[in-house]
Amino acid sequence: MSQDNIRVVMINTSHPGNIGAAARVMKNMGLTQLYLVNPKLFPNAEATSMASGADDLLSRAVVCTSFEQALEGCRLVLGTTARERKIQHEFIDAREAGTLSVNESAKHDVALVFGRERIGLTNDEIGLCHKLINIPTNPDYSSLNVASAIQIVSYEIMMALKYRPAAEQVEPKSESQTDYASSENMERFYHHLEQTLVDIDFLRVKQSPQLMSKLRHIYNRVRLEQEEVNILRGILTKTQKLKK
Amino acid sequence: MSQDNIRVVMINTSHPGNIGAAARVMKNMGLTQLYLVNPKLFPNAEATSMASGADDLLSRAVVCTSFEQALEGCRLVLGTTARERKIQHEFIDAREAGTLSVNESAKHDVALVFGRERIGLTNDEIGLCHKLINIPTNPDYSSLNVASAIQIVSYEIMMALKYRPAAEQVEPKSESQTDYASSENMERFYHHLEQTLVDIDFLRVKQSPQLMSKLRHIYNRVRLEQEEVNILRGILTKTQKLKK
Repeated sequence: MSQDNIRVVMINTSHPGNIGAAARVMKNMGLTQLYLVNPKLFPNAEATSMASGADDLLSRAVVCTSFEQALEGCRLVLGTTARERKIQHEFIDAREAGTLSVNESAKHDVALVFGRERIGLTNDEIGLCHKLINIPTNPDYSSLNVASAIQIVSYEIMMALKYRPAAEQVEPKSESQTDYASSENMERFYHHLEQTLVDIDFLRVKQSPQLMSKLRHIYNRVRLEQEEVNILRGILTKTQKLKK
Repeated sequence: MSQDNIRVVMINTSHPGNIGAAARVMKNMGLTQLYLVNPKLFPNAEATSMASGADDLLSRAVVCTSFEQALEGCRLVLGTTARERKIQHEFIDAREAGTLSVNESAKHDVALVFGRERIGLTNDEIGLCHKLINIPTNPDYSSLNVASAIQIVSYEIMMALKYRPAAEQVEPKSESQTDYASSENMERFYHHLEQTLVDIDFLRVKQSPQLMSKLRHIYNRVRLEQEEVNILRGILTKTQKLKK
């Protein structure tokens, strides 16, 4: 079932009650895969209590020590942000996120990423997302609880599934058959790029996380196909050989 | 404002925390009018705590002693039910409810009615509703928390409002203020890239339009900012120097 290919990733959640509430709203809407990156307290009685019958999702939750680990195997990563930051990412609304996730989950794993209660996602984390979900809110009171955000996106997935057979809103074929690079292969590409920049003395050894983060930002938002990664890595390899 | 003509009516709510959570999700989505029919405990500290900054909605909440009183002045009454009962009512989903509420609230007051935590609405109460809202859920785990149901319907009202003035959808400011690279500068970048690939013997002189077109495809769809083009050209210049 394609819903099992859609994972909810919660990063560094402070309040275990929010994890439990998230499990409940996910299960209500038919989602099953919960990934927790460095939760402050988990497992926890308050999480179980708030899950209210969705504790099977908690007991199967995957606890990760890094965001990258939580994204393993995913070829579409959608982040959520409270506000539209000054960032060169494509913003979509929760409805588009629902349709996109359902369409893509038929072919590969999809991650929906939710940040910390107060500060959301860091720029580095955003750098690993292909698109950002913006949920419309009252501008005077926009701080959406993390479980509420998960609720809305999960609901839109349920709606997209419900209305899929009727309208057959499938992405154009060219899109659906695209062989996107996996998160792991993107990581390999970034390491290769960084090493090459060091080799050609453009970068001092790992001294410029800011520059690497800008470069990641470029290539992540383009959502590279595997073939394109191969071309870019071919160029890097050729460049490296110049120094030998 | 038409949102002020849309009231949320909670009937006989047992847990004050649910009233607070409802206020919060309403305010997030721009709704302001909360009517409480015979709440078990209200006002209440737990309600205020759960409202988390939306306590203005609680202090203005109208406490009623009958359902009829809560509906005074309303010309459209939409009830919510967990399941489709054997009832001669028109069922609509939350999306239709959002559009309908927004359209009708321009002319008169609208009530969205949410029943008790365990048993929902009585048949008599349903008899006072014009239509019933059915929120799709996982059939194996369909018990939606009352605040979650309010969340979803409120969200659909926000979405209906957002997409109503189709012509007025202005681009977000952050987007329009971005300093994107001009077409001319993108052309200069592509020439620089091609020349560099020739210099490092990755390409034979202008013999591979197909590869260049693939590379253009990558960078064009990312919509680069000028600063990013500068970084990329800096890398190219450094690479070219290796051959000299």
